[in-house]
Amino acid sequence: MQNFTWYNPTRVIFGKDTVPQLADILKADGVKGVLLVFGGKGTFKSGAYAQVTEMLNDAGITFSEVNDIKSNPLVGKVRDGVARVKAGGIDAILPIGGGSVFDTAKAIAAGSCYNGDVWDFFTGKAKITKALPIYGVLTASASSSEVNNIAVVSNPESEIKTSITGNALYPKVSVIDPSFQITLPEKQTIYGGVDIIAHVLERVLDGDEGSDLIDEQGYALIRTMMRVIPELIENPRDYDLRAEYAMAGMMAHNGFLSLGRNARGDFSSHRMGHSLSMLFGAAHGATLAVVMPAWARYLYEDNPVPFARLGEGVFDIFDGSDEEKALEAIEALEDFFRDIKAPTTLRELGVKEEDIERIAENASRGQTFGVLSPLEPDDVLEIFKLAY
Amino acid sequence: MQNFTWYNPTRVIFGKDTVPQLADILKADGVKGVLLVFGGKGTFKSGAYAQVTEMLNDAGITFSEVNDIKSNPLVGKVRDGVARVKAGGIDAILPIGGGSVFDTAKAIAAGSCYNGDVWDFFTGKAKITKALPIYGVLTASASSSEVNNIAVVSNPESEIKTSITGNALYPKVSVIDPSFQITLPEKQTIYGGVDIIAHVLERVLDGDEGSDLIDEQGYALIRTMMRVIPELIENPRDYDLRAEYAMAGMMAHNGFLSLGRNARGDFSSHRMGHSLSMLFGAAHGATLAVVMPAWARYLYEDNPVPFARLGEGVFDIFDGSDEEKALEAIEALEDFFRDIKAPTTLRELGVKEEDIERIAENASRGQTFGVLSPLEPDDVLEIFKLAY
Repeated sequence: MQNFTWYNPTRVIFGKDTVPQLADILKADGVKGVLLVFGGKGTFKSGAYAQVTEMLNDAGITFSEVNDIKSNPLVGKVRDGVARVKAGGIDAILPIGGGSVFDTAKAIAAGSCYNGDVWDFFTGKAKITKALPIYGVLTASASSSEVNNIAVVSNPESEIKTSITGNALYPKVSVIDPSFQITLPEKQTIYGGVDIIAHVLERVLDGDEGSDLIDEQGYALIRTMMRVIPELIENPRDYDLRAEYAMAGMMAHNGFLSLGRNARGDFSSHRMGHSLSMLFGAAHGATLAVVMPAWARYLYEDNPVPFARLGEGVFDIFDGSDEEKALEAIEALEDFFRDIKAPTTLRELGVKEEDIERIAENASRGQTFGVLSPLEPDDVLEIFKLAY
Repeated sequence: MQNFTWYNPTRVIFGKDTVPQLADILKADGVKGVLLVFGGKGTFKSGAYAQVTEMLNDAGITFSEVNDIKSNPLVGKVRDGVARVKAGGIDAILPIGGGSVFDTAKAIAAGSCYNGDVWDFFTGKAKITKALPIYGVLTASASSSEVNNIAVVSNPESEIKTSITGNALYPKVSVIDPSFQITLPEKQTIYGGVDIIAHVLERVLDGDEGSDLIDEQGYALIRTMMRVIPELIENPRDYDLRAEYAMAGMMAHNGFLSLGRNARGDFSSHRMGHSLSMLFGAAHGATLAVVMPAWARYLYEDNPVPFARLGEGVFDIFDGSDEEKALEAIEALEDFFRDIKAPTTLRELGVKEEDIERIAENASRGQTFGVLSPLEPDDVLEIFKLAY
């Protein structure tokens, strides 16, 4: 097992009708004005917007808004938010939404405490040392952004979707009321679920021996999601299913499942998926359902052990050689993605064969990346061809 | 699933040779003098004392000592520590040890910021609002005290062993170097392991529906411990086994496995076990191996479901009625305790039949307690008779 540091100071308030609890917290922390960050119609339809603004009005806290945040959020919206904060009267950021909204809020929170352009954090030109406090209200689980210190933002000028990390980015408080997720479109339930599963796979498949206990926790999380997603497709209004989903969503990518691992995960598939989002606007979860199985098929023969263990831990595959178990596990994963109607080929994302080279170049940018097996630009191209 | 709040700000530094990392942290936090709290020979044998004092000397931090803390730690030692802090020159508490030492340190940390007698916190006469910061070094995993906000202390005058809880009691930093546990006596590995398992059982057997995902995480933790404890008895110097044990030890009772549960666990068996420790000085883990199976046998027929689910999740028991699965699970648990040479009867703890009433009275104190099934004083007496 590898040495590690664990630190996660976010306070999670989880459950039905929990938004009003924010009022006392904001008042105790001396917050007078907040910047609301949110997307579109879903924020109103879920009831979250009404509950948050009522809570703020009751607490006597003023608010401004940056809205229309879309999935694969753009740096332009971050810059808008930073400008609004710098105009004055705002002590804290209050995202109402899913991962894209939380990521935007985090980037605004950091950018508001920095004199240069916020994209400097993403290029490595500047380091995040402080940020405004974030008090968030989650309306869509998937990224664990509500409980981690990561933000992923896209820059259309440079055609790059990339991430920043820093302890100042942990939300101070995240309110997770699973009932807001009852009105989510089915596709978002599916893609968010794939993302949650992928966050565990990126870890247990990174080739590090890690910790058996943590691996077991990860396998249990995947098994839970494989039960919950199909049940939610049938019963989207079931609160307890939404709550299990939200619980898994906050646990998959908050750092906990990286404990004892060297590299804290592989994340090659995420990087390759980001290119598909950047260039084709594909939903993040959909890109992962396409890329992960192709990545796995490309690599498993040289690295069968983590895939074989996944087969044992998640799919009850105990017979055969490690290679046989590995292939069976990959097929079972693909079958599951197909069963829940997630795309598993580039074709289904609307990608044409002639686009593949450009996608591979966008993902590689001339670099070698990946942990289980370092991927040269040629490997990336082959994986995208397999995914086609 | 029940609403909950999750907050755990302790920074965990986990792994080999990690004590020196404390120097920079203590200096950055402006600590000039610490109170070392520890037990006896084990602190020196493990190498922890030498590493900590070298680190403090290098950092130019002075230290005083309160030592000879025993298992089932006494309030007298807490008072000694508080007096030492009030004499001046101490900004922080630095426990080096296991749960008893951490618990003592927490009580000292709170008592040092209070004008009355520290026992007032335990009787409910005073509430914990602040405490000195705690920077701990763990040398024995079992209680999760290194990552929770609980302290259990015994008062021999009133013959009560009881606990305090408060967010001010979370250690600021806990260093968990599993190599310090290589020199632990075999009995401590066994009893600590029983305690870790019991912390999960107290939760998954409390009768609350809770969260399937959290239950699965709990079952995975028990399965890991059931593999690791016997392997450690054979190979006590195996670092990776010690690391898995330490990982499970910090996760079992840090609050995480209570997420989504109403009562956050039953803990009747802990309360009954505390009486055996108080009156007979029995090791905490040993009392749990005796009490939990008796408690389970007494209750399972009226509440078979949580026991049957335990059977499925931990022991692969899938055939039969819930009652049959429940009984089979309880027997499997007892078999495991016997296999690792933990006591499973009061007789093995040296208790005589004529002591049973006094023990039951000490546990009940005229009150009804327990979550899965509230235990009247008569029930408690019957459970101890069953355990005899």
